[in-house]
Amino acid sequence: MLEAESPTRLADIEQAAKRIAPFAVVTPLLESQALNERVGGRVLIKAEMLQRTGSFKFRGATNRMALMRPDELERGVVAYSSGNHGQAVALAGRIFGTTAVIVMPSDAPRMKVERTRQLGGEIVMYDRLSEDRAAIGNQIARERGLILVPPYEDPHIIAGQGTLGREVALQADKLDARLDAFLVCCSGGGLTAGCALALQALSPATRVIAVEPEGFDDTARSLAAGHPVRNEPGKRSICDAILADQPGEMTFSINKRLLAGALDVTDHEALQAVRFAHEQLKIVVEPGGAVALAAVLSGKFDARGQTIGVVCSGGNVDPTVFRQALDA
Amino acid sequence: MLEAESPTRLADIEQAAKRIAPFAVVTPLLESQALNERVGGRVLIKAEMLQRTGSFKFRGATNRMALMRPDELERGVVAYSSGNHGQAVALAGRIFGTTAVIVMPSDAPRMKVERTRQLGGEIVMYDRLSEDRAAIGNQIARERGLILVPPYEDPHIIAGQGTLGREVALQADKLDARLDAFLVCCSGGGLTAGCALALQALSPATRVIAVEPEGFDDTARSLAAGHPVRNEPGKRSICDAILADQPGEMTFSINKRLLAGALDVTDHEALQAVRFAHEQLKIVVEPGGAVALAAVLSGKFDARGQTIGVVCSGGNVDPTVFRQALDA
Repeated sequence: MLEAESPTRLADIEQAAKRIAPFAVVTPLLESQALNERVGGRVLIKAEMLQRTGSFKFRGATNRMALMRPDELERGVVAYSSGNHGQAVALAGRIFGTTAVIVMPSDAPRMKVERTRQLGGEIVMYDRLSEDRAAIGNQIARERGLILVPPYEDPHIIAGQGTLGREVALQADKLDARLDAFLVCCSGGGLTAGCALALQALSPATRVIAVEPEGFDDTARSLAAGHPVRNEPGKRSICDAILADQPGEMTFSINKRLLAGALDVTDHEALQAVRFAHEQLKIVVEPGGAVALAAVLSGKFDARGQTIGVVCSGGNVDPTVFRQALDA
Repeated sequence: MLEAESPTRLADIEQAAKRIAPFAVVTPLLESQALNERVGGRVLIKAEMLQRTGSFKFRGATNRMALMRPDELERGVVAYSSGNHGQAVALAGRIFGTTAVIVMPSDAPRMKVERTRQLGGEIVMYDRLSEDRAAIGNQIARERGLILVPPYEDPHIIAGQGTLGREVALQADKLDARLDAFLVCCSGGGLTAGCALALQALSPATRVIAVEPEGFDDTARSLAAGHPVRNEPGKRSICDAILADQPGEMTFSINKRLLAGALDVTDHEALQAVRFAHEQLKIVVEPGGAVALAAVLSGKFDARGQTIGVVCSGGNVDPTVFRQALDA
């Protein structure tokens, strides 16, 4: 069934896990008694901000680039990204010995721009409100003969991100925990789709739920409509990492079939989750990476009596935003 | 040999590990490629700020209180602490169904006072510069018939803290890592002594090194003198968690025999380590818990070509201090 309906299968995720193992971190599944008591359930945090470059994006980028032929690596790659996919592609480029051009919005957190540059990425800026990043990425790929590494619309990227879901299933098994639900931060839907595929196979009773920022709930509205729907233009959110305009065709075809639902959280709820993670969990999460935790803390997802997995990724939080979170 | 020379033996640490297992977190041993590249060696971070109450102190307190008789638990306990041991004793008190009085300095971080109170501890304040906390703790114990849970001068506390060193040895084995050195934040010396005992038995080639704040290098000076020496009075440090006046008699008798040396770091180096942990490692560490990392980052410990373990504990950092660290 899976094979017929999706270009990414569990076998692809298993292969991706082997492929990225020499490079990626097996991030821990953390449990906090203080958090459990607060929400009245058992919460297992997938601490993916401990991944290299601070987010799950390194999994997909590494899996995709590990599959490139020598002549492709010779040409170099290009990616568009608000910052986390860009850092991941830049580092994977360094690992596989190729150059990386990263197309970033001019309002990306400065720290993400600097880190992408430190990893050897060549930065090209664009205006997020008036220009189309995919068009710019494709144009650069054509003009300079580079290979595009898309953020989510690619079966190998989805398989790479799916290794996170596979790890969670194995780690929960070791803890004798049966996950009632799994909450994922969601933008274009690559991580969500990959994890949903992995969990469908390895933990079929687990409901997978996408969590989005308020105003960028395109996955929720697309699930309701039955086809990909764009966000209203002109919205703003502090969750810079997860502001895709609409779900991908490929990711949504998977998520439509496998998701149990989608929730959204406000900027304030995301900032409070960043603060809670700092004060109580002792981990660093950026607002976009904290939305799944925010859904639990705010009670929008009712965890009482349940065992749930929650992704926290990434950890590349701007100092100004972090100071704001400490006051949230 | 060990048996003859120390009241705490490996068998005590093994028993403590079993005793605290139902309550304590097996904190992960983290590795960051970015950190490895920066220092030119392999650094394994024992992320002990993920322990309950945010520090290793929960291990010793739990081991000590698990051994109390029902009539002792009936009476209640008292502890003196700058904040981390206090939180640990308060939580362990709650777990074992007893009351806890915590004697804290009036200049303890407010957040630590609040958290100790939230965990059910009754706070008694004293003036750190003019009063003797041990005398106050002993007086309260006498007057109110409470059991004193000392921060380090107790074989069961030392055995409890030693479970951290035992875990590191087992975790390093799983990673096929042979630790050349192990760096521990050091105040009264309980964690250092417990870990040194565990590693002497489980990883005898590992050099154990205590790291202290500048001006509070009593362990370094005691090692040089061959007997416990007090710090010069009137010093100040941002590392509030590790400002004991002098090593314990019991802990120093172990540390004198087993330590390879001691280093000290400045406030600025500790704050830079707090910032590095936040920005690069994505973990929250307070200045006193970051001194071992600071020794590595500052180059005072030269990690080049070595595989080393580094304790990061605790994570109860005051918001004001944390803002200061972000600018360090």
